[in-house]
Amino acid sequence: MKIGIDAMGGDFAPHEVLKGVKDYLQEAGDAAQVVLIGDEEKLNALLAGADLPQASYSVVHAPQVIDMHEHPTKALKEKPQSSIAVGFGALAKGHTDAFISAGNTGAMLVGALYSLKTIEGVLRPTISTIIPKEAGQTGLLLDVGLNSDCKPEQLNQFAIMGSVYAQNILGINKPRVALLNIGEEEGKGNLLAQATYPLLKENKHINFVGNAEGRDIFIDKADVLVCDGFTGNIVLKMAESLFEITERKGIKHEYFDLFNFENYGGTPVLGINKPVIIGHGISKAKAFKNMLALAQKMIEKDIMQKLAAELKP
Amino acid sequence: MKIGIDAMGGDFAPHEVLKGVKDYLQEAGDAAQVVLIGDEEKLNALLAGADLPQASYSVVHAPQVIDMHEHPTKALKEKPQSSIAVGFGALAKGHTDAFISAGNTGAMLVGALYSLKTIEGVLRPTISTIIPKEAGQTGLLLDVGLNSDCKPEQLNQFAIMGSVYAQNILGINKPRVALLNIGEEEGKGNLLAQATYPLLKENKHINFVGNAEGRDIFIDKADVLVCDGFTGNIVLKMAESLFEITERKGIKHEYFDLFNFENYGGTPVLGINKPVIIGHGISKAKAFKNMLALAQKMIEKDIMQKLAAELKP
Repeated sequence: MKIGIDAMGGDFAPHEVLKGVKDYLQEAGDAAQVVLIGDEEKLNALLAGADLPQASYSVVHAPQVIDMHEHPTKALKEKPQSSIAVGFGALAKGHTDAFISAGNTGAMLVGALYSLKTIEGVLRPTISTIIPKEAGQTGLLLDVGLNSDCKPEQLNQFAIMGSVYAQNILGINKPRVALLNIGEEEGKGNLLAQATYPLLKENKHINFVGNAEGRDIFIDKADVLVCDGFTGNIVLKMAESLFEITERKGIKHEYFDLFNFENYGGTPVLGINKPVIIGHGISKAKAFKNMLALAQKMIEKDIMQKLAAELKP
Repeated sequence: MKIGIDAMGGDFAPHEVLKGVKDYLQEAGDAAQVVLIGDEEKLNALLAGADLPQASYSVVHAPQVIDMHEHPTKALKEKPQSSIAVGFGALAKGHTDAFISAGNTGAMLVGALYSLKTIEGVLRPTISTIIPKEAGQTGLLLDVGLNSDCKPEQLNQFAIMGSVYAQNILGINKPRVALLNIGEEEGKGNLLAQATYPLLKENKHINFVGNAEGRDIFIDKADVLVCDGFTGNIVLKMAESLFEITERKGIKHEYFDLFNFENYGGTPVLGINKPVIIGHGISKAKAFKNMLALAQKMIEKDIMQKLAAELKP
């Protein structure tokens, strides 16, 4: 398998990307080949002293870079030689089997939605985040910002996608799916939650356990939490900021280490027909290494095929 | 002034209510008289040994209690002699100047909305929560659950109400008001946020500073955060659970003490014509004392009149 990675994406690219690739290859052996996408001259200069196993990587030239604050659609159009545009091109043509970038998140989302095909039957792709639980387990929250306004049918599909992902990637058997809501009983919540509940209850593809409230997010009530992307993004950013605050205040505890999102790598875009993983702008070697391992796992488990099977119209 | 308090409301009533009243009266002196609402026989038996200054309190008999899990509307109808129903009756008739309860939250909300008048011009009353900030300040988040689906005009009024409250009760001069959103720039967010932003920008009653994201909730970007009640309730419950988790894990730090919601007492219902404060079910003496002090401050500052002046149609 070939995993494409944007060598120029992220605040600490390309150095930390290359360090992450090296660490990944040391563990992965010859399970995968990494395709570094970026400025060939710059990369080759760095690779000369990087001591990477030559047979395990290749470089694809992409002389342009989309900056963090560029307008996604405009930048993708005006920079066809950017690492993100070239990365998606390689993936769409089948030259690679997955694509990873910690660059401009908007450009990654636009690229994923427009360069690749949506899985048949999927209304809208989604992005998720890993949620650390009090007892040390991890759960999944989705959507976390790709779909800020949602329809009940979309949340119902997110539940399936989250469930397949939790089962195959997080290794959770029969993941418990809950609707993030503001009350425990059926009938509670805003109009969206009220209309979504009966769909989830009837959904035979998932193990629905009812509503979960804000206070249940960090405890072990459910494995997959479903919500609209507005709510999910607020929850995600709040959880991330919490880790940063404890770091700044020097509050050390293994519980807060679980909130270090670098441990989880990036977030995959679910619902498209190829694995795409979006990293945080502040990703360092560890995050890149974990994203590469995640891409490998998604390919090995053939997640896209499993999603397609569950979502077939 | 006379402050009515539900002596039977909350998991630790009536004992902790009476302790809170005693602590409050010790500090407040003769600034206020407390009207204890509940079962007269039970209360008198407890009061006999409670050593409260006789001139500073009275008891109003209410033989029924609405339990925590009763259906609010049904319970209020079927239990007209409950402490909550009697408490609202006394407030509506002007026998008291404020009403506090840590009992059934739903019944408190229904009572507030139907026993009292909405301030002229207010589309929907709202409830808020105090949000502790990284540097030790406190901000206000609203709505936190009374209005799970909102219109832009409602959020625009919540901004005014939150601003008046922050200025007068929290003592923040020209409070900075932000829209809780999932992006920094104007135009970001779900349909509600997109439509609300221009209203807030044009609103001359507030000091609007733009969007705040989930990561800004706990830092000092704004003093008043405005959102729909679905999002706000999730944020509130998440913050509350965080305190509980750190308690359970024995993680001690002054920062997390700020998350002890007992310090803030309860949440006032804003937009109705009399002060009503809803306490958490787990309120203990400290919370009751703080709610009494808050009621006193709301009466002294004549918050309802100030809200009416800003919201006049």
